[in-house]
Amino acid sequence: MEQSLSSLKVLDMTRVLAGPYCTMILADLGADVIKIEVPEKGDDSRQFGPYINGESAYFMSINRNKRSMTLDLKSESGKALFFELIQTVDVVVENFRPGTMEKLGMGYDVLKEINPSLIYAASSGFGHTGPYSKRPAYDGVVQAMGGIMSITGELGGKPTRVGPSIGDITAGLFTAIGVLAALNYRNETGRGQKVDVAMLDCQVAILENAMARYFATGESPKPAGNKHSSIVPFEPFETSDGEIMIAVGNDNLWRKFCAEAGLEAIVDDPKYCTNPLRTEHYETLRPMIAAKFKADTTDSWYHRLTEAGVPCGPINNIEMLTKDPQVLEREMIVEVAHEVAGKTHIPGIPIKLSRSPGSIRTAAPVLGEHTDEILKTLLGKTDEEIKALKAEGIF
Amino acid sequence: MEQSLSSLKVLDMTRVLAGPYCTMILADLGADVIKIEVPEKGDDSRQFGPYINGESAYFMSINRNKRSMTLDLKSESGKALFFELIQTVDVVVENFRPGTMEKLGMGYDVLKEINPSLIYAASSGFGHTGPYSKRPAYDGVVQAMGGIMSITGELGGKPTRVGPSIGDITAGLFTAIGVLAALNYRNETGRGQKVDVAMLDCQVAILENAMARYFATGESPKPAGNKHSSIVPFEPFETSDGEIMIAVGNDNLWRKFCAEAGLEAIVDDPKYCTNPLRTEHYETLRPMIAAKFKADTTDSWYHRLTEAGVPCGPINNIEMLTKDPQVLEREMIVEVAHEVAGKTHIPGIPIKLSRSPGSIRTAAPVLGEHTDEILKTLLGKTDEEIKALKAEGIF
Repeated sequence: MEQSLSSLKVLDMTRVLAGPYCTMILADLGADVIKIEVPEKGDDSRQFGPYINGESAYFMSINRNKRSMTLDLKSESGKALFFELIQTVDVVVENFRPGTMEKLGMGYDVLKEINPSLIYAASSGFGHTGPYSKRPAYDGVVQAMGGIMSITGELGGKPTRVGPSIGDITAGLFTAIGVLAALNYRNETGRGQKVDVAMLDCQVAILENAMARYFATGESPKPAGNKHSSIVPFEPFETSDGEIMIAVGNDNLWRKFCAEAGLEAIVDDPKYCTNPLRTEHYETLRPMIAAKFKADTTDSWYHRLTEAGVPCGPINNIEMLTKDPQVLEREMIVEVAHEVAGKTHIPGIPIKLSRSPGSIRTAAPVLGEHTDEILKTLLGKTDEEIKALKAEGIF
Repeated sequence: MEQSLSSLKVLDMTRVLAGPYCTMILADLGADVIKIEVPEKGDDSRQFGPYINGESAYFMSINRNKRSMTLDLKSESGKALFFELIQTVDVVVENFRPGTMEKLGMGYDVLKEINPSLIYAASSGFGHTGPYSKRPAYDGVVQAMGGIMSITGELGGKPTRVGPSIGDITAGLFTAIGVLAALNYRNETGRGQKVDVAMLDCQVAILENAMARYFATGESPKPAGNKHSSIVPFEPFETSDGEIMIAVGNDNLWRKFCAEAGLEAIVDDPKYCTNPLRTEHYETLRPMIAAKFKADTTDSWYHRLTEAGVPCGPINNIEMLTKDPQVLEREMIVEVAHEVAGKTHIPGIPIKLSRSPGSIRTAAPVLGEHTDEILKTLLGKTDEEIKALKAEGIF
């Protein structure tokens, strides 16, 4: 079946996370993504453990569906091949520190002369403009500067880093949106452009109610633990063998919750019958609820409350998540056969399209797996020409 | 200037966060987003505090650039107008619980008969398929079930909720990508389709190295605090007046760091000279670094280390973030004039496009602000027809 982005050719100059995450999404949706890697070494993340048969599980998880070509971009022949490639592709994505592509003689100003319809997407720590532009950044630094740590953590506790590298991942997502928006513009006008996405900017963009609260009140929110600030009960409770998250989002759910939790005695209590009252009398209400939860297991509560229509769920660890029936039914855990690592599992595609669905067609490539294939099919090189180029040591 | 999505008309049936976040992105990039709201009440989040002159700061922060039309979808005349609107738009976005649109007689199967090129995007807690499909979900429940809480929190501590509603926001981002991918497919084939995005699926998709580690080792990662698991030093340190995050990502940075931090004595120490060694001898190394940081202020360290090329940054709260020179230079804080609230500030657009940039053209609409305008311009209704419809009480 034809895929949404089947006609799109992407030259992928990215490494590690933000850039590769963006090009993975494009590849999942059908784009032909050609990953240009440094000869012998490849993407830095090929060295990140843990390994499966010597192959980085990390690299494999975000580089499926891509083709790998090695190329020494500092050599004259390597540069020449790169410029040939630029004429054949629709999109370039890179996540170097700003200025790096220019130093290589491959900045957007040069590339757009060669291919005016090229979409050039750059994902960087601080963006291609502004006083911090040239600074290096890591996810940890962006999470610190970007405010998300200041509102994550235990109540009264210290700012806490979000487990996944949300600074990189949101930049990858916004960059993918930028590329697709630019693609629509190009479909209408024939003209390419530059897409510039900064990890720090993306952090500002995802702060939602913390930002709204600050602008309304002038006060910076603090880590609030796992409790909702204005809905009660809306937090995890300890059970006889673990914890369960419950979300009694309105008064109708409160009635369902009380009936199932054996709290019929307080359902209409003038101290607890509406959400504002429950919020006001939280200190006396919480212990009553907590005592009930202690009397049964997480699994039992989860099934009883779900049956009763009360939003709730276990606090899954990664293993539990990968075995959840809904996650499996939605094909969010996919088995792939990797040339070296053998059969492994990677996350699936969260965008489900009814007519032109994405797909996981191939495992991540081994380094330079498709160099010859790309030279032949995309650039029309002959075996002899390839042999001569190889003698130069540029792959 | 023409914008990337200027030609796109979006009928926005969304409420609260995941859906409105998606349609905000489309509107920021130029789409004409018509928000259909329940008469008198509107989007639930119009009731979420805090307020500025009685208008919800929360609602205003994620509904700029949209037009608001009230419409009673349960009335016959309301339904008829809805079907008229469906014929004029390119995209519908909704984030109801699966089954709700079908109950209203407006499921995708019905709408695609009226408009075969329609892109129908649905963002829900668990998706439109699978055993949990019909369950209600809140961000807290999805964060709990989705594994992100299990890897966020203090070292040795409890699973911790991420401050912003990352379950909603990532679903909004993936839905926007799905709409734009489907748009490309439609540009090529003329055919529409359904985009189905589940908040839970999106959590699986953003776990990155935690998921890779689990599949490689069979062990579920736990909350790891603010320290990088395999790079040292890569964590916050206390200064004389606060904290600073540093990220000494490689041995070259280690040398720069030692020179600036007065740690020349240990730079070539065989216990600390490479990252694996520093990781191995973390327990003796950390106190030496910590002592140095205690001797100067966060601001001074930030400037000194930045000057030396060492990635680092303050742990900004929201106020500090909104005053950061880079954030301001990148126009990530934007002033808008709201009809009722007056001048307020909202986050900017993190996708910077060189040729067809996004823009914040209007503040969030007041409820039903554009009902008449849309009836006239989009549906060609006369003043008399509008008067008659109003008499039915459907707006």
